[in-house]
Amino acid sequence: MISFKSYLVTLLILTLFFISCKEQINSTTLSNVNSTSEHPNLILTKQGVKDIRVNLGSIPIFDESLTETKAEIDTEIENGIEVPIPKDYSGGYTHERHKRNFLVMQKAGVLYQILNDERYAKYVKDMLFEYAKMYPTLPVHPKPRSYARGKLFWQCLNDSNWMVYTSQAYDCIYDYLTGEERNMLENDLFKPFADFISKGNPQFFNRVHNHSTWGNVAVGMMALAMDDDSLLQRALYGLKDVNLNPNMKDNDGGYINRDGKVGFFANLDEPFSPDGYYTEGPYYQRYASYPFLIFAQALQNKKPELKVFQHKDSVLLKSVTALINLSDADGEFFLLNDAQKGMSYYARSLVSAVDIAYHFGGNNPELLSIAQKQGKVTLDDAGLAVALGIREGKTQPFNKNSIELSDGPNGDQGAVGIVRSGDLELVFKYTAHGLSHGHFDKLSYALFDDGEEVVQDYGLARFVNIEQKGGGNYLKENKTWAKQTIAHNTLVQNKTSHFQGKYDIGSKHHSEQYIFSVDDIDLQVASAKENKAYSETQLHRTIVIIKDEEYDNPYVLDIMRVTSETPNQYDLPFYYLGQIMQTNFEYSKLDTPQVLGKANGYQHLYKEASATASGDNIKLNWLLNNKFYTYTATTSNNDDIIFGRIGANDPEFNLRNEPTLILRKKNFKDALFVSTVESHGTYSPISEFAVNAYSNIRNVSVIYNSNEYTAVQIEMSHSKQNIFIISNENNDSNKEHNLSIDDIEYTWKGSYTLINL
Amino acid sequence: MISFKSYLVTLLILTLFFISCKEQINSTTLSNVNSTSEHPNLILTKQGVKDIRVNLGSIPIFDESLTETKAEIDTEIENGIEVPIPKDYSGGYTHERHKRNFLVMQKAGVLYQILNDERYAKYVKDMLFEYAKMYPTLPVHPKPRSYARGKLFWQCLNDSNWMVYTSQAYDCIYDYLTGEERNMLENDLFKPFADFISKGNPQFFNRVHNHSTWGNVAVGMMALAMDDDSLLQRALYGLKDVNLNPNMKDNDGGYINRDGKVGFFANLDEPFSPDGYYTEGPYYQRYASYPFLIFAQALQNKKPELKVFQHKDSVLLKSVTALINLSDADGEFFLLNDAQKGMSYYARSLVSAVDIAYHFGGNNPELLSIAQKQGKVTLDDAGLAVALGIREGKTQPFNKNSIELSDGPNGDQGAVGIVRSGDLELVFKYTAHGLSHGHFDKLSYALFDDGEEVVQDYGLARFVNIEQKGGGNYLKENKTWAKQTIAHNTLVQNKTSHFQGKYDIGSKHHSEQYIFSVDDIDLQVASAKENKAYSETQLHRTIVIIKDEEYDNPYVLDIMRVTSETPNQYDLPFYYLGQIMQTNFEYSKLDTPQVLGKANGYQHLYKEASATASGDNIKLNWLLNNKFYTYTATTSNNDDIIFGRIGANDPEFNLRNEPTLILRKKNFKDALFVSTVESHGTYSPISEFAVNAYSNIRNVSVIYNSNEYTAVQIEMSHSKQNIFIISNENNDSNKEHNLSIDDIEYTWKGSYTLINL
Repeated sequence: MISFKSYLVTLLILTLFFISCKEQINSTTLSNVNSTSEHPNLILTKQGVKDIRVNLGSIPIFDESLTETKAEIDTEIENGIEVPIPKDYSGGYTHERHKRNFLVMQKAGVLYQILNDERYAKYVKDMLFEYAKMYPTLPVHPKPRSYARGKLFWQCLNDSNWMVYTSQAYDCIYDYLTGEERNMLENDLFKPFADFISKGNPQFFNRVHNHSTWGNVAVGMMALAMDDDSLLQRALYGLKDVNLNPNMKDNDGGYINRDGKVGFFANLDEPFSPDGYYTEGPYYQRYASYPFLIFAQALQNKKPELKVFQHKDSVLLKSVTALINLSDADGEFFLLNDAQKGMSYYARSLVSAVDIAYHFGGNNPELLSIAQKQGKVTLDDAGLAVALGIREGKTQPFNKNSIELSDGPNGDQGAVGIVRSGDLELVFKYTAHGLSHGHFDKLSYALFDDGEEVVQDYGLARFVNIEQKGGGNYLKENKTWAKQTIAHNTLVQNKTSHFQGKYDIGSKHHSEQYIFSVDDIDLQVASAKENKAYSETQLHRTIVIIKDEEYDNPYVLDIMRVTSETPNQYDLPFYYLGQIMQTNFEYSKLDTPQVLGKANGYQHLYKEASATASGDNIKLNWLLNNKFYTYTATTSNNDDIIFGRIGANDPEFNLRNEPTLILRKKNFKDALFVSTVESHGTYSPISEFAVNAYSNIRNVSVIYNSNEYTAVQIEMSHSKQNIFIISNENNDSNKEHNLSIDDIEYTWKGSYTLINL
Repeated sequence: MISFKSYLVTLLILTLFFISCKEQINSTTLSNVNSTSEHPNLILTKQGVKDIRVNLGSIPIFDESLTETKAEIDTEIENGIEVPIPKDYSGGYTHERHKRNFLVMQKAGVLYQILNDERYAKYVKDMLFEYAKMYPTLPVHPKPRSYARGKLFWQCLNDSNWMVYTSQAYDCIYDYLTGEERNMLENDLFKPFADFISKGNPQFFNRVHNHSTWGNVAVGMMALAMDDDSLLQRALYGLKDVNLNPNMKDNDGGYINRDGKVGFFANLDEPFSPDGYYTEGPYYQRYASYPFLIFAQALQNKKPELKVFQHKDSVLLKSVTALINLSDADGEFFLLNDAQKGMSYYARSLVSAVDIAYHFGGNNPELLSIAQKQGKVTLDDAGLAVALGIREGKTQPFNKNSIELSDGPNGDQGAVGIVRSGDLELVFKYTAHGLSHGHFDKLSYALFDDGEEVVQDYGLARFVNIEQKGGGNYLKENKTWAKQTIAHNTLVQNKTSHFQGKYDIGSKHHSEQYIFSVDDIDLQVASAKENKAYSETQLHRTIVIIKDEEYDNPYVLDIMRVTSETPNQYDLPFYYLGQIMQTNFEYSKLDTPQVLGKANGYQHLYKEASATASGDNIKLNWLLNNKFYTYTATTSNNDDIIFGRIGANDPEFNLRNEPTLILRKKNFKDALFVSTVESHGTYSPISEFAVNAYSNIRNVSVIYNSNEYTAVQIEMSHSKQNIFIISNENNDSNKEHNLSIDDIEYTWKGSYTLINL
């Protein structure tokens, strides 16, 4: 919490430096008073270029980034310009070439400014003219899959990417071009291009979504580069007089636009919560952070009167800190909703985000440590600021602590709770749906141990930009598997997904935060409720991380409480990663795996083995990356235990064949799933020593359960007992409770307590 | 080759320093003339201790090792001594505690010598007396699984481990003890202990095997420590007058002793080839290297007249270099026969081996670079020598090049060929059987890319020292799966393993080396024949690694030629690791996996999908650790293609569920399997760029095949063609060949040629 709190203080101080801005900004109050038409002025400024040149050679991280970029672009220039006729999906040649082109143009433009070497300007100019030659006669892209097909790429989204980068290149070489050249480029290429992705595709441009953010920013950045205020209005506030069918959907099943909100500011207001959490999740926040922040930077430089960084209580700056907090010990983002594993704050968009947030956000010294890990900076004013900060020794560590990040435009649509203790990081999801990239997994969690995912979220079913796999796009298994509830570590009722797996329903609801209390590092509690995922059934999950002084590592206690009007079947899957070492129960392996179900994701699971519970604890001890883990769960007599594996009905080997253990309670109205997860030991394949290979938990039992209270007793191997009691209906932290269990009286203040016996 | 050649030169020079020793050493010529009875004199000498003390503080790698050891032992001393009554298998408490005890005693003894602090001597003494108190009444270990049960441990092997380390501790504190104390320890503990593992277990002690190596060395080390020459005779030349049933076998199915060879020198002569390759494979060589080298060191110190380091043309010194050459880019050992993944030259036995080989082997400066990677040295004379060498800046890189290591006592029982090119390392096995740890996989290969295994050898089916899994011992799947031919990348005829999977037969034969030619780094060839694995069928496999200047990485060409008197079914499995991206052929996935067979390892494979070949090339493109690979194979019309996965009939989840592709030719007498393997591209989950995701090989075809010659044409994507021709019956490197294929005349000298068109 400390780092986030101190960050808020920093923001507060920062805010005092700005002149308070109460008047509502709208299209009529926009003026050109403070804007400047000198170039460059988007990410580089005249003054910035001067400062960079003065400091070159004495700012190592900047110097190295420059050297690397120069080497890359020099090779590109040597290889010559290629502007092929568009043809492929992502991963294919023309797609990758055009993508490369815009990245390269942006870098070449910047090099021209910094190094004052006309080779770079000429290269950008020549490439732009190749595009200007091709664009006027270019038809819509031949690949038909998108709801908004582009011209250079198969979707307007990628065309917008192109323009966000190209606008920066144009700004850099603006003064190098003649007026005639500029006219030609603007009239033959930039303006029709901007019109195509906006007016030509209102279903793409006029919505609240990461796609339209890119669209708005593409048009806005080019408007700033061209000093075209009317185009800028379009970017900031959307197309006017467009009537879209409110039931229109995109390829992911998301509504195009149901509430009429449009334009850059709407895209800033809606998906970000006041804590800076982006409702689609960190993977898409990373993707969207680039256009948001690069445009904010350009706006701040050219239209400071818009005070974009102060907008919504500085939400853009908060979003960068939030995103860093949404990464594991290695900087890899937690998987919430559609997300590809391995994406991290080492991505180039995060280099920009961190540098911009540092430069325009009050020089938070903790961001410098992230920049140092990234090992590079952007070659612009923001990157210079970071490089100078590092040179001056201002760096402070960015300590990631437990944190709750609210969801929803007003922060009242649930949250993500991240509980950190020792090497464990647990991500608990009780958010809103997350727009079209949302998964149906209310109250799910994933667990990381020293940056390694141990209890996994599957992520998306896609191999991004790998053409061999469905053109690098979303695979059909994303809908049939990855989004379904059973693909996650949360409760499934009657083998149907939350909200019937329907976006229309799910997107209307969110979970309810109940407790997030992490001040005591040895006893951290996150608790949330979900009452809408199934009608007539309420879910209440509580995650506790307890550090017992007797043991090296903390352990997780998970209490999933279900109450219902009707008897149901409840499945609680546990997606451990690794190899089974031992169970404390007998199971029988099937001769051949069987498919577990017919729909809602179950059709993708094999059942490999099963057992019937006796009512005692079940224990699963497994090995992953040379660490030993144990899952211990309470059972009722006759519960089913299913060892499953992902991969059924997967005709093209699109899924990863990873295991799960499903605990199934049949024909229950109310049910209580209680389990613990420990990381307790290590193995070395070199010394061949196994250390603490067994669980430290002897038994877990529910000693009390009513509507008001649930009490769980955990007996430790060293004959110690912990009793955790939670108040299920009153989360007031000042409320006094007393409860008698087996003739022992327990009294405490607040919504929960842990008693050590 | 260079490093190995230069090593041979070093050895030659070294040999000149020694006095030639022609007389036969046997038990009658042994004398005490050169021996010394001062202590310590096994791994530390009086002079060595003096030198260490003088240099302490100025030899960083030694100082750090000392600091680390001191911290560890101080903690142990604080925790107190525990000598529990033996009870468990490996991984269990008593096993691990006794193992810890002997490691700790050895270190404490050394610390006493170096630091001259009696706390350490007292600790060793107290622990030894605990053992001396317990031992006389200790029954045979209660766990019954071993053919040679120990007393402290479930097998004599581990009892021997105990004595190898404990003898060093005893030597270190010898002078600290009174004569009476020594008598008590020797009479109550050491002598009966030595008798039990030798006389009490002749089936363990009197054989040629890594077990008896430990047994011989245990007795020999203690004999040296006690100055007991009669016991030393027993260690060096075995028990006399023991008649073992020649058909007796151990738990692994290996014969105890068929040829009557016994004692340490026999164990040195038999399993090592003249190149220093240990016939069981590198995993067991690593294990055995400790007793071999530690005893050699002690013998050299106390019985220099035995000239143990010169024995068999300095085979012990060569063995260390051979073992380093048998590791991948990360120092992890290649998997040949029973071997656990992850074992590497960072193991403590290799620290000893490297230090001893350096100190007693002419100070080969390349070994210093391995010691530096290990980051530690032994706390003895050898470790001091290494630390001084490093301090004096003598370190030179240990360059691992392509190398062939012969197998068999005389080097005429086949070999292992290691072909290295770029980041690729290919291990090609055409050895003898490898004693009881041998697998039935003649002519198999495994492929590594920058230290990552890409086309795998499964290794053993065991979780060494992890008690949860079968007491940490070999699992039954080791026999039913891991040793079987189908578990390896080599040819299986009629679903039966090589030599019918029978050790009795397999251990009598070895493959025949045919070509090993690696001087041209761009065209390296290893070729071998196996005529005994199946009666009436001959196998001839040729592995070529070609570096084509047009492409970044080299690629592998694999030609497996089968000739037989009778029609057979031939299966060639390909154990790629990773996820399928794409194939160039249609396949149909089964609704649920089916078991592939009933026996010989097939019962552990699931069939997941299959296809029928058309006679065209098949291509499998896959992704592993963010690299793209492609396998391209020629087929005949109607060949079966089977996508398999390990894990059937595995009731306790002992196996890893990894994939394979099996190419099956049905009802062929002669057959030719030709394939290529490429590492051609990369993916970044951070930039999400896929680079060179597709194969560079357009087509592979056999353009000629007769008894005399096989010619393969490889068409590259850049419209280039390579033709590789091999002479199948004449491997004379001076022989002139000419061959007409499709009216084109090819002439060349030597057993093969590559023509670039």
